[in-house]
Amino acid sequence: MSGKIYTLRELSELVGGELAGDGGVSIRGVAGIKEAGDGDITVVVEAKYEELLASTHASAIIRGGGVSCALPSIVTDKPFLAFVKVLELFAVSTDVAMEKGVHESALVDPSAVLGENVRIGPFCRIGRGARIGSGTRILFGAFIGDRVVIGNDCLIYPNVTIREACEIGDRVMLHPGVVIGADGFGYVWDGERHVKVPQIGKVVVEDDVEIGANTTIDRATTAVTRICRGTKIDNLVQVAHNCVVGRHSILAGQVGLSGSAELGERVTAAGQVGVAGHIKIGDGVVIGGQGGVTKSLPPGVFVSGYPAREHRLAMRLLAFTSRLPELFGRVKAAEAKIARLEKKDSHDETTKNDR
Amino acid sequence: MSGKIYTLRELSELVGGELAGDGGVSIRGVAGIKEAGDGDITVVVEAKYEELLASTHASAIIRGGGVSCALPSIVTDKPFLAFVKVLELFAVSTDVAMEKGVHESALVDPSAVLGENVRIGPFCRIGRGARIGSGTRILFGAFIGDRVVIGNDCLIYPNVTIREACEIGDRVMLHPGVVIGADGFGYVWDGERHVKVPQIGKVVVEDDVEIGANTTIDRATTAVTRICRGTKIDNLVQVAHNCVVGRHSILAGQVGLSGSAELGERVTAAGQVGVAGHIKIGDGVVIGGQGGVTKSLPPGVFVSGYPAREHRLAMRLLAFTSRLPELFGRVKAAEAKIARLEKKDSHDETTKNDR
Amino acid sequence: MSGKIYTLRELSELVGGELAGDGGVSIRGVAGIKEAGDGDITVVVEAKYEELLASTHASAIIRGGGVSCALPSIVTDKPFLAFVKVLELFAVSTDVAMEKGVHESALVDPSAVLGENVRIGPFCRIGRGARIGSGTRILFGAFIGDRVVIGNDCLIYPNVTIREACEIGDRVMLHPGVVIGADGFGYVWDGERHVKVPQIGKVVVEDDVEIGANTTIDRATTAVTRICRGTKIDNLVQVAHNCVVGRHSILAGQVGLSGSAELGERVTAAGQVGVAGHIKIGDGVVIGGQGGVTKSLPPGVFVSGYPAREHRLAMRLLAFTSRLPELFGRVKAAEAKIARLEKKDSHDETTKNDR
Repeated sequence: MSGKIYTLRELSELVGGELAGDGGVSIRGVAGIKEAGDGDITVVVEAKYEELLASTHASAIIRGGGVSCALPSIVTDKPFLAFVKVLELFAVSTDVAMEKGVHESALVDPSAVLGENVRIGPFCRIGRGARIGSGTRILFGAFIGDRVVIGNDCLIYPNVTIREACEIGDRVMLHPGVVIGADGFGYVWDGERHVKVPQIGKVVVEDDVEIGANTTIDRATTAVTRICRGTKIDNLVQVAHNCVVGRHSILAGQVGLSGSAELGERVTAAGQVGVAGHIKIGDGVVIGGQGGVTKSLPPGVFVSGYPAREHRLAMRLLAFTSRLPELFGRVKAAEAKIARLEKKDSHDETTKNDR
Repeated sequence: MSGKIYTLRELSELVGGELAGDGGVSIRGVAGIKEAGDGDITVVVEAKYEELLASTHASAIIRGGGVSCALPSIVTDKPFLAFVKVLELFAVSTDVAMEKGVHESALVDPSAVLGENVRIGPFCRIGRGARIGSGTRILFGAFIGDRVVIGNDCLIYPNVTIREACEIGDRVMLHPGVVIGADGFGYVWDGERHVKVPQIGKVVVEDDVEIGANTTIDRATTAVTRICRGTKIDNLVQVAHNCVVGRHSILAGQVGLSGSAELGERVTAAGQVGVAGHIKIGDGVVIGGQGGVTKSLPPGVFVSGYPAREHRLAMRLLAFTSRLPELFGRVKAAEAKIARLEKKDSHDETTKNDR
Repeated sequence: MSGKIYTLRELSELVGGELAGDGGVSIRGVAGIKEAGDGDITVVVEAKYEELLASTHASAIIRGGGVSCALPSIVTDKPFLAFVKVLELFAVSTDVAMEKGVHESALVDPSAVLGENVRIGPFCRIGRGARIGSGTRILFGAFIGDRVVIGNDCLIYPNVTIREACEIGDRVMLHPGVVIGADGFGYVWDGERHVKVPQIGKVVVEDDVEIGANTTIDRATTAVTRICRGTKIDNLVQVAHNCVVGRHSILAGQVGLSGSAELGERVTAAGQVGVAGHIKIGDGVVIGGQGGVTKSLPPGVFVSGYPAREHRLAMRLLAFTSRLPELFGRVKAAEAKIARLEKKDSHDETTKNDR
């Protein structure tokens, strides 16, 4: 695909593992163990996947120390990280290999400041007083608002909108259709209509954040909506005004955070999770898919369901709920037995009184 | 931030409250009570937030009559509305302060009719027979379809798409990435494939509606999908074909309305709510976050959960569900006691018969 | 609306039904039974909707054989398909009736290959080595990445992004804001940060697929994310990396598929459904609205709820859950009776022992 060829020996030196078997085999691509064909290298992380090796057509593998395999191999204690390095070697995105400089159709305000090696593609607009750091690429059709600051080595995919005064750190990736800094959703009812609360804050996206396609991050009412360093956000996620998402967190597809929610560091929210407004989620919390978090959570808990509860409890309650038909039956049977006992008792009583 | 400075006295006159304390203090910004610093004005709506005043660095506050505070103040019985007015004074969106007229890169069909002071930004397209009302601003990269009608004083943010024949009222705001009038999702299975049902209706968005980033409102199969006057819609919301959303309603982030759902006036749907097709939601209904409404609802109810039920009932059922482990235990204990009583009874019977 | 006029006789010949009543009546439009006015034709599929006919203002109807009606009619055993054909006759989308050729503002790389009658609208970019099939229309503001292949007679609405190397079949419709081929969401934690897993695969969208506004389909890590022939996807849907969606499936609005989920043929997922990663959904499965599928499912089942269970079971458990207040009451009453019986029993015992 990429046209690149490495020997397995070269790869083992590039990714730092130990060579086992023929180091001269030519590697021309990377693939999953099922799809791999002649010339491909794949990965087996753990011994439990060994059985898949029997039918693979890969020419070589990257494997953990506990995995046995007769194929030419790179052996390492971090096989998946080694696999990632090999993927990086073969990754080719010609779309982002843009020509240097500013495309003739792009509109860069004279007051904007561009760093070295900034690349700006067709039909983009860079606003008044904006600053774009060196090495940053803005591909196509992007609206960069007035006074926006973007750091170094960012990658802004097509059709992104960043509204005025928002700040983007270094090495940030914004996928197509991302909207940063749209107005937060705030109104006050005056008796006749919803009066808009002006949203005069901004969004700050720190270094090494990645934001998925068509995700929206609203600006704060006042102050800042903040996505902290190293956090990764998937597609179609909604982050409302004044939220804070802590460092190295993960928000999967279609997650929604209501206004002023605060997430700690290394929080993981699975797909379609919803978080209520004005609550705090502690560091390291994990929220299962479609979970609905309605209250603040202490650090380290794993919750799921609606309303989100400690996961083992939630599972236990689901199991008990599944047994409700049985329970209703048991109660009915118990009631019948009680009725018989009572009838008997009353009969005995009568008999006794008759004596 | 905005460069504007007011004295507190000036502000009190502009927003209509009563001045308490030094009216000469200079106000240069607006902020929440925690973030406010020197030169900022903030708001305290109710006495219960008084304790936050002890540590604020604000130079002045807007407060309700029941709130005591030694800081220079504007006192009013509608403190939040006064705060909104002050926010409006300080709001600066240079992005929307566009140059007058049509940008040289924009494509306006000769048959389109533009009102006075219409501003059309770069890389927009205005279709055949479209009509744009006076004072309306279309920022960047917008596709305005043929025969689209847009009213006066609208604000259309970047990268919006409005397809042909849709109608937008006055003072409507469409945030970046909004799609109005894409085909409704309708097919009929002919035994071999899904045959597309042509969607020949349109979307009507009435006056004073606001629609959030990347939200989609589909055109009707025939007739109209309608968003009525004063309704506010958040980001990433899906409104399917032939829906009607009544006046002054609120749809929070990621809400989804299925085809032909009809919402009354002043309905509130919290984040990620789903509404089934062809049902009617009465005026003033409130639907809690992630609620799934599967049946029509009478006016004024507050529902939550899946399937959505009256909220107090839903809470009660959740509480009972949480007590299922206890209930299973109690039933088991009762069964044991019944077994003992039955055994005893049978023994007594035997004894009695023995007598 | 469209300016077209047909007699009912002409329509009956064009759609293949039997004429009943005056074939000379002029039909100028199509509408639902409630909205239809003078000159409109509407449809009544089944006898149970007959009562609506009493108040319709339609000039003619298309009806099933079992429906009686005095209005001039086209009678057919597939009334809805006939209605669809009439809709097609009246459908007018001037937006997509573009001028031939490539708009002067569009950027087509010299290495791209365009078929016959390809139409490319304003502010589009066609990448290096891309191939666009004959009859395909790309409306406005679209980014078509390097080496993308698009088949014949496709319709690409405004502001779509297709990243490099993705493949689109024939007669595919992509609605506004669709993003095809953004990076899948994959990271590996190295102890200090999330290391991005390069996403070097692609997306393949087969023939006759339709994808709704602002929907996102991520490229595979390696290999392919595939949307099979004839599948229809609604707005704001998320399809993660390495998913496969089988032929003729239906994904309604805001559905989310996690990574490597595999759906069979003719699967139906209603609005806001979530599917966990790495699971398989059999052919013909139906998933109710907001359902959360956490495990693989055999063909043909109908599931709902979270976690998704067989629908009748899910309904039954909901019904039992609704009766929990009653059950708690019954258990309490049973416990009281048992206590009385035990007390009595103990008293009798004492009495007996006293004798």
